[in-house]
Amino acid sequence: MQRAQPPRGFPVGEYQIRVTVAQTAMAAAGFDGLLLTTEPEIRYFTGFLTQFWQSPTRPWFLILPVTGKPVAVIPAIGAACMARTWIDDIRTWPSPQPEDEGVRLLASTLTELCGPAACLGLAMGAETHLRMPVNDFARLKVELAGAQWSDASSLLRHLRMVKSPAEIDKIAYVAEVISAVFAAVPDFIHSGMSQIDAFRAFKIAALSAGVDDIPYLVGASGQGGYGDIISPPSAQLIAAGDVLIMDTGAMFDGYYCDFDRNFAFVSADDPVRRAYDVVYAATDAGLAAATVGARVSDVFSAMWAVLQKGGALGNDVGRLGHGLGMQLTEPPSNMPDDHTVLTANMVLTLEPGMTFAADRVMVHEENIVITETGAKLLSRRAPASLPVIP
Amino acid sequence: MQRAQPPRGFPVGEYQIRVTVAQTAMAAAGFDGLLLTTEPEIRYFTGFLTQFWQSPTRPWFLILPVTGKPVAVIPAIGAACMARTWIDDIRTWPSPQPEDEGVRLLASTLTELCGPAACLGLAMGAETHLRMPVNDFARLKVELAGAQWSDASSLLRHLRMVKSPAEIDKIAYVAEVISAVFAAVPDFIHSGMSQIDAFRAFKIAALSAGVDDIPYLVGASGQGGYGDIISPPSAQLIAAGDVLIMDTGAMFDGYYCDFDRNFAFVSADDPVRRAYDVVYAATDAGLAAATVGARVSDVFSAMWAVLQKGGALGNDVGRLGHGLGMQLTEPPSNMPDDHTVLTANMVLTLEPGMTFAADRVMVHEENIVITETGAKLLSRRAPASLPVIP
Repeated sequence: MQRAQPPRGFPVGEYQIRVTVAQTAMAAAGFDGLLLTTEPEIRYFTGFLTQFWQSPTRPWFLILPVTGKPVAVIPAIGAACMARTWIDDIRTWPSPQPEDEGVRLLASTLTELCGPAACLGLAMGAETHLRMPVNDFARLKVELAGAQWSDASSLLRHLRMVKSPAEIDKIAYVAEVISAVFAAVPDFIHSGMSQIDAFRAFKIAALSAGVDDIPYLVGASGQGGYGDIISPPSAQLIAAGDVLIMDTGAMFDGYYCDFDRNFAFVSADDPVRRAYDVVYAATDAGLAAATVGARVSDVFSAMWAVLQKGGALGNDVGRLGHGLGMQLTEPPSNMPDDHTVLTANMVLTLEPGMTFAADRVMVHEENIVITETGAKLLSRRAPASLPVIP
Repeated sequence: MQRAQPPRGFPVGEYQIRVTVAQTAMAAAGFDGLLLTTEPEIRYFTGFLTQFWQSPTRPWFLILPVTGKPVAVIPAIGAACMARTWIDDIRTWPSPQPEDEGVRLLASTLTELCGPAACLGLAMGAETHLRMPVNDFARLKVELAGAQWSDASSLLRHLRMVKSPAEIDKIAYVAEVISAVFAAVPDFIHSGMSQIDAFRAFKIAALSAGVDDIPYLVGASGQGGYGDIISPPSAQLIAAGDVLIMDTGAMFDGYYCDFDRNFAFVSADDPVRRAYDVVYAATDAGLAAATVGARVSDVFSAMWAVLQKGGALGNDVGRLGHGLGMQLTEPPSNMPDDHTVLTANMVLTLEPGMTFAADRVMVHEENIVITETGAKLLSRRAPASLPVIP
C-alpha cells in the first residue's frame, strides 16, 4: 500500500514551536542570540528551501535572538524566495560584494538585536562548520568587539535530533517510495549492465516514483562482494557472481531517507550469503534494542555482538548507523562512545556493516523512528536472504 | 551532431601538472604547505570523487607540501576510494571520533611534511569556507603553535580559473547534453502541468540523455514572467500566458554546466518578449566582449549597457555571469569591480538579467570558453526570440 504524499512545507506553527523551544534553551544557556550560516540550520527555523546553496559564492545568515522572530541577513538574490517563508524581517545586501560580503550589515543587525555585549552562539562542535570565509568571520569579531562567542552545537544538536510528526511523515514518504524502487530493481537492473547505467536507471525510477532528488547514490559491485561503499559507479559491467550494493539518500521536500540494498547476480557464493545473514540478524538486534530510554551505545552493543559472533573482521564505516532528517547524516552516531538517550520521534538509520573477508565488506541499512512501543521501520525491511537477480 | 562522451577521470599527468603549477606559486608566495578541506579543493589535486560529502559528519583533509605529492589525511571509510586515485600517502583515523576528529593526526602530518615553523596556506577569502569544526581548527592552531597561517585564496582561485582541455571537454559535453534536453522541452512540458512535474520530467530527460546528476534545477513560472530565479518548483500549474524559466546545473564526471532557458506557453505578451530580446542582445554584447586580454568588468560593461538601454530597472542577481567548472559557480564574477583579465581556457557563464517590470525579471544564460579567437559557446545558443509552446 502506497503512503499518501504529505503536503509540502510546514504550517507556521511548526516554525513557531522550533523557535520557542530554541529560545527556551538559549535563555537557559545564557545566549542572547544564535548566528546560523548553513543550509539546514537556516531552513530549520525559516523553511527557506533552495538548491542555490550549490553556489559557494554568497554567504547567508540567520540571526535567532533570544526573544522575537528570526531575522534573515541575506544576498538580495534570495529576498523573493525568503519572503515566501514566515520570516518578515529580511535584510539584504547586493551580493557578490567581496569587499564587504554582508559583514557590516550582519554586525549592525546582531548589535541591534542582541546588544553590544551579547553572548552569541555559533555551531562550533562536531559535525559542524561555519559557512562563511574565515577572513569574514575574523572581521565580524572585530566589528563586534564587545560580544562573546560560545559554542551552541549541543543546543542545536538536541533541537533537531527529535523530529515532529510532520517531519517524520516526509522521511517516511521518501523511504516508502525508495523501498518500492528497490523492490523493483530486478525489473530494471541485470547482469551485463555497467554500474553507471544501473545507477542511472535507479535514479530515473526514483524520480518517476515521486522523490524530488537523489543527491546521494553510491555503491559498488564485485565478485562475491565489494570493498568500498562510498564510491560513484564505474564503467565496470555487472557480472554473474557479483554482489551489488546501492546506498541512496533520496529527498522529498527537503528531507532524506538513507538506506541501502544488496543484490547478487545469477548466483551468490556462501561467504557473501552468510555475511548477509549476519548483518540481517544484527539489524534484528538493533530493532529490538532501539527503545525509548536506551542509549545509542546500547543499540551499538547489541548489533556489534551479532556482527562479532558472525565473524566480523572490522568496520571501516566507524559506526552502525546515525540520525537523519534534513541532512543525510545527523547526530547521534550509533557507536560505543555516543551515549545519547533515545526518545520518541528520533529518526535513525540502523547500518550494520562488517569486513567479512580481505577487501570484502557487507553493509545493511534501514531507517527507523523511535516510538513509545519500540522501533518502527520507515523503510520496508530488506529481504531476509540475499536476493539473487537471475 | 552529438559530441562524443569524454573519458571519465584524468590521466595522472593532469594532476601532476596541477600540483607543479600550485607548488611553483606556493614557493613564490612563501608557503610551505597548503591545507585543503573542501570537496572541490581536494578533488582538484587528487581526483577523489564521491557524493559522500553529502554527509557533514566527517572532515577530510589534504596537505599539499611545497615539494612532493599531496598527502591525504582522511576518515578510514574513504581509504579504499582514495586509494584508487594517484595519491599513495593516505593516512586515516577511525571516524566518527568527536573527541579527536583527525586533528592530532593532521597536526603531526603537517609538522612532518612542512616543518614545525611552517607558513601554511588556507583558503580564507571570498567564496570560500573551512570545512571543519571551528573548535577543531582552534585546536589545530594550538597543536601547531609554531606555524603561521596565511590566506591562499588568491593562489587557489587563479589555479582553478583556467581549465585544461580535458576539463573543458567534460563541461562542453554536459552543456551539449543539456542543450539537447532544453531543445526537447516542448515535447515533454506543456501548460496544465505543475512546476513540480515539469521539473521532474526535465530531470528524467537529462539523466536519460547522459548527465550523471542534476544537483541544481531551479526556476519559476508566472503570467508574463517570473519574479525569482532561485526557488524550487511548486505545485502551481503552468498556464497559458505564463513564462517559465528553468536554470540547471547538471554534472558529468564531476563538472557542471550552468545555463537557463525561458519558455512561454500558448502566448506571450509584448513586455516579456521585449525583455527577452534585450537579454538576448546583451548576450551578443557579452560574446563579442569576452576576448583574451579583456577584463571581466569590460564584459560586464558591454552587457549592462545593452540592458540599461533596454529598460533594465535593476538586477538582484548581482552579476551578469561567473566562472564554472567543478562548482556551479566559481570566480571570476562578471561585475563592475572584478577586473580579472580573461585568458584562454577560462570557462564562464554569460548571464544577463534584469528587472523589467514590478516583480518581473528576465534572465538568460549561456556557457562559453575563452579562446585565442574569441568566446566560443559551449551551450547551444538559446532561440533568438522567446519560444512559445503551443
